[in-house]
Amino acid sequence: MTFRAPVQDIRFALDEIAAMDGLKASGAFPELSEDLTTAILDEAAKFANDVLAPLNRTGDQQGCTLKDGEVTTPDGFKDAYAKYVEGGWQGLQFPAEAGGMGLPRVLGMAVMEMMQSANMAFSLGPMLTNSAIEALLVNGTDEQKALYLPRIITGEWSSTMQLTEPQAGSDVGLLKTKAEPNDDGSWSITGQKIYITWGEHDCAENIIHPVLARTPDAPEGTKGISLFLIPKFLPDANGNPGERNAIKAIGLEHKMGIHGSPTCVMQMENAKGWLIGPELGGMAAMFIMMNSARLAVGVQGVGIAERAYQHALAYAQERRQGRAPDAEGPAPHPIIEHPDVRRMLATMKAKTEAARAICYLCAVSADEAEHEESEEDRAFAKRREEFLTPIAKAWATDVGVEVSSLGIQIHGGMGFIEETGAAQHYRDARIAPIYEGTNGIQAIDLIGRKLSMGGGAALKELLEDIRQTVEDCATSSNPELPQLAKRLKPAADAFETAAKWLMTREDRSDALAGATEFLALSGDVIGGWLLCIGAVAAQRRLKEGQGDQDYAESRIEIARFYAETVLSQAPGKLDSIRVGYEGLPDDLALGIS
Amino acid sequence: MTFRAPVQDIRFALDEIAAMDGLKASGAFPELSEDLTTAILDEAAKFANDVLAPLNRTGDQQGCTLKDGEVTTPDGFKDAYAKYVEGGWQGLQFPAEAGGMGLPRVLGMAVMEMMQSANMAFSLGPMLTNSAIEALLVNGTDEQKALYLPRIITGEWSSTMQLTEPQAGSDVGLLKTKAEPNDDGSWSITGQKIYITWGEHDCAENIIHPVLARTPDAPEGTKGISLFLIPKFLPDANGNPGERNAIKAIGLEHKMGIHGSPTCVMQMENAKGWLIGPELGGMAAMFIMMNSARLAVGVQGVGIAERAYQHALAYAQERRQGRAPDAEGPAPHPIIEHPDVRRMLATMKAKTEAARAICYLCAVSADEAEHEESEEDRAFAKRREEFLTPIAKAWATDVGVEVSSLGIQIHGGMGFIEETGAAQHYRDARIAPIYEGTNGIQAIDLIGRKLSMGGGAALKELLEDIRQTVEDCATSSNPELPQLAKRLKPAADAFETAAKWLMTREDRSDALAGATEFLALSGDVIGGWLLCIGAVAAQRRLKEGQGDQDYAESRIEIARFYAETVLSQAPGKLDSIRVGYEGLPDDLALGIS
Repeated sequence: MTFRAPVQDIRFALDEIAAMDGLKASGAFPELSEDLTTAILDEAAKFANDVLAPLNRTGDQQGCTLKDGEVTTPDGFKDAYAKYVEGGWQGLQFPAEAGGMGLPRVLGMAVMEMMQSANMAFSLGPMLTNSAIEALLVNGTDEQKALYLPRIITGEWSSTMQLTEPQAGSDVGLLKTKAEPNDDGSWSITGQKIYITWGEHDCAENIIHPVLARTPDAPEGTKGISLFLIPKFLPDANGNPGERNAIKAIGLEHKMGIHGSPTCVMQMENAKGWLIGPELGGMAAMFIMMNSARLAVGVQGVGIAERAYQHALAYAQERRQGRAPDAEGPAPHPIIEHPDVRRMLATMKAKTEAARAICYLCAVSADEAEHEESEEDRAFAKRREEFLTPIAKAWATDVGVEVSSLGIQIHGGMGFIEETGAAQHYRDARIAPIYEGTNGIQAIDLIGRKLSMGGGAALKELLEDIRQTVEDCATSSNPELPQLAKRLKPAADAFETAAKWLMTREDRSDALAGATEFLALSGDVIGGWLLCIGAVAAQRRLKEGQGDQDYAESRIEIARFYAETVLSQAPGKLDSIRVGYEGLPDDLALGIS
Repeated sequence: MTFRAPVQDIRFALDEIAAMDGLKASGAFPELSEDLTTAILDEAAKFANDVLAPLNRTGDQQGCTLKDGEVTTPDGFKDAYAKYVEGGWQGLQFPAEAGGMGLPRVLGMAVMEMMQSANMAFSLGPMLTNSAIEALLVNGTDEQKALYLPRIITGEWSSTMQLTEPQAGSDVGLLKTKAEPNDDGSWSITGQKIYITWGEHDCAENIIHPVLARTPDAPEGTKGISLFLIPKFLPDANGNPGERNAIKAIGLEHKMGIHGSPTCVMQMENAKGWLIGPELGGMAAMFIMMNSARLAVGVQGVGIAERAYQHALAYAQERRQGRAPDAEGPAPHPIIEHPDVRRMLATMKAKTEAARAICYLCAVSADEAEHEESEEDRAFAKRREEFLTPIAKAWATDVGVEVSSLGIQIHGGMGFIEETGAAQHYRDARIAPIYEGTNGIQAIDLIGRKLSMGGGAALKELLEDIRQTVEDCATSSNPELPQLAKRLKPAADAFETAAKWLMTREDRSDALAGATEFLALSGDVIGGWLLCIGAVAAQRRLKEGQGDQDYAESRIEIARFYAETVLSQAPGKLDSIRVGYEGLPDDLALGIS
């Protein structure tokens, strides 16, 4: 099946939903223009379609191999990586003064989405390198920046993120990797890390490892953690890869999916490293990487959903079975004509677009949080970014799983056969709700920190904006739009009611018992809101006769389907969120004797 | 992880929810007694726990191989199959006069559930053999019965079900396999069948293939189909395997899961076969096999959900991460103490039990439909069996997928690593919503044929029974039970409203557009109703001080959790069901230009 990056949908989300253009006003992106955006999206689409997508299935079949500490990636990955470096893609969203292209993060996310659609296993590598660049930009010393950034921002050197240890997963404070100071200001780090994505590979000439470790006499838990930079090859006097450092891959995980991505067990034996940020400041430094990675993982969810959708859509047009009541021409009809199959496709399409909208709005908010002129605007944007990040990560990755499962279902028996490729999307998609903080951790972050942040300011601002969209829809001259308002309003009310219930629990466990369900509701409602914003914009285009009129119509139709099928269910979810800790079965009821 | 068949839960579902005991009154099961049930469930549990479960992971890793038309199953499968035959399990639910044990089908389903939990890939074989036995019992000639049944009912000979061809999946009427009459009353069958489960293997000395084919001058479509019996080895004069027939496996599918089950491409070149039932009566004969298989696939959903639950429960008790607000003892606490994880486990447990209850009630109804004394009672039971069959198949298999996905999530990163085993459940579970009629086909059957059957009689009778349970709960002396009534009543109302809306659509496409969502609602409500029946029974046990009192309490607690989190959402799903054909996006909105 031929993948084609959905440039039109991405552009619509950038222009009309996330309002990327508004970033120009800050003056931070002098290069940003309509033409440049077009050129970048078109080039990225070519790279995704022609270079990455053809390696997706073979990468899954071949997987990676480890021999004598060296990892070999699947055929073609090395060449594709060279083209990635050559295209300058890694630096797209980073400042020009650091060697990047100085474009908004949201544009980088759009490019990343196409890459993830085309080849999730490959694109995980560049995705994590982005996170390390963020960490260095914020916390690196001038010397570190000068030494590392130019090589990492080109992608010539790649990067990882080394947090997890066997006993320390979601509870990162339990990690045991130790750092001892050397006389020259460097540190000697010893320990083992697991689940290290692209921890070792043959695509880049050097790999930079940000590693969380514990310094001598550090307090227990997360307060005792520091972040270190450990290069695979120590840069020599000219900044070129020199002596091999004592960090190596000692195992590759045998995973259900993303076989093309080497997931390594990494061993450090007095590996040489340097602090990134202050000693004991590891958690804050980690969260800089983590936040970027969380949003990017959400974008993976969008990417894999888009890929699965295209796959299923093509099959549903081609496969003929049965007689569809409203179809033209002789039976058997293409299965897309069967209402049940069409509905599955519609659900896939609508949820993918809602997830994309949430991720892009989150990315634009991150851009604004950095670059808006006034402190007030930056603070507003920061709150929105922080509120949306766990939703973007968890909701979009759950959509990735749901949509790829529907993709299998549309394929029928062919969906379960590996040759078809639909199964790979399903296997690949399943990791995204787990890594970079499980979706449960996201939900706990949302109800714990994000709801109460600034006295509930982010929630209040969001509700105001949603209600503005209700108003915009309700007063539209297009009779379709007031129908959207009728669905969005009660959904927003339910979202508010649920949020307030959670915020007013005396016993934290009562709120925690409904955290995941609240996050799901939040995504449902915010995703629907953003599709409604798209519908309002589409109506403007229709009224002004601007652009592709059929496409504008389709924006309204997708929003309507989502409103009728997803938003309509929002009020009914309230009681399930409010079940409380006492509503959970005890050990006996779970069958523990 | 050690699997232990959930004998107590199964027994409760048999005794208190499906009311298996009521079958005694018909006189059809003279052997059925409490002691025999206990003995059978205990023996079956041993077989599942000790023989089948240990082969599950190795079966997945090794898979099957095909060489020169011969399939080799994974190590241990052959021995396990011999033990299965030795135990007489295959004949459990078949009449004594045919060589079976003459016990109810529902008891057979209970045994099958344990086997599917323990090893889904293995147990698929025996499951399909059951279906062929049904077909022979109903449609076989006396001669066929005498020749084949004694060998199949012991499991010495296994059986398949050969329907699908590349162009004929859900639309079985498109099949092309041809049957030409021979002079001796036999037929010569030529064609290719795909997705043939256990089509060839090394466990049984002969394989009996029921095959759908087209006779000369047969009309097009499903009306032109006949069912043939094609043995791998033609029985000789003594009924022993004789000459090799011209039917062979020419390929094995490379599947996402159930690797231990050989899924064959079967080629017939003038294979010798005999009609089962009348010429052109293939569809009716197929549905006899199919109905039995559909319920059995639902039971697979229950089985894999149970397995995934036990796996996740064990991990959640052992894995320690973070500080849980209400946990005792020093952190890190077992993750089961985190409300979010406990809720996932509770959802897994409650939905698994609801799915079990639906399947067992369906099986008891099938028993009653055959054996009740009065024609009226048999007709009532038949309607209920037919109404519940698509729900048992589709809802329970969707639960299998959902629960195994939650199982992965609870394992965190470990869930995505194949060594853990959680991933296998997820991969295995995904086939069940597809085969034996996709879940979409089940939904179409439910809203098309089953809702309107007998002027809506099955629905009406079901609603009456549900409302009786509402009444029983509402008037209970245990204050927990009226809370159940408060959730069950509006859920039943929503179920009724949705059903009536679907039944009154003039345009069939309007109903079809909501079919899958209606089936989901039906399962949610019926599953909840049955858990409430269990709660009423548990309250009786509490009042009478009968049996394990903690266990009785737990029945009420699980019902309450289900009611608060699942039933509470039922009314909110109405509008999504009533979206109608016009509510589905058109081709343009789906991105087809």
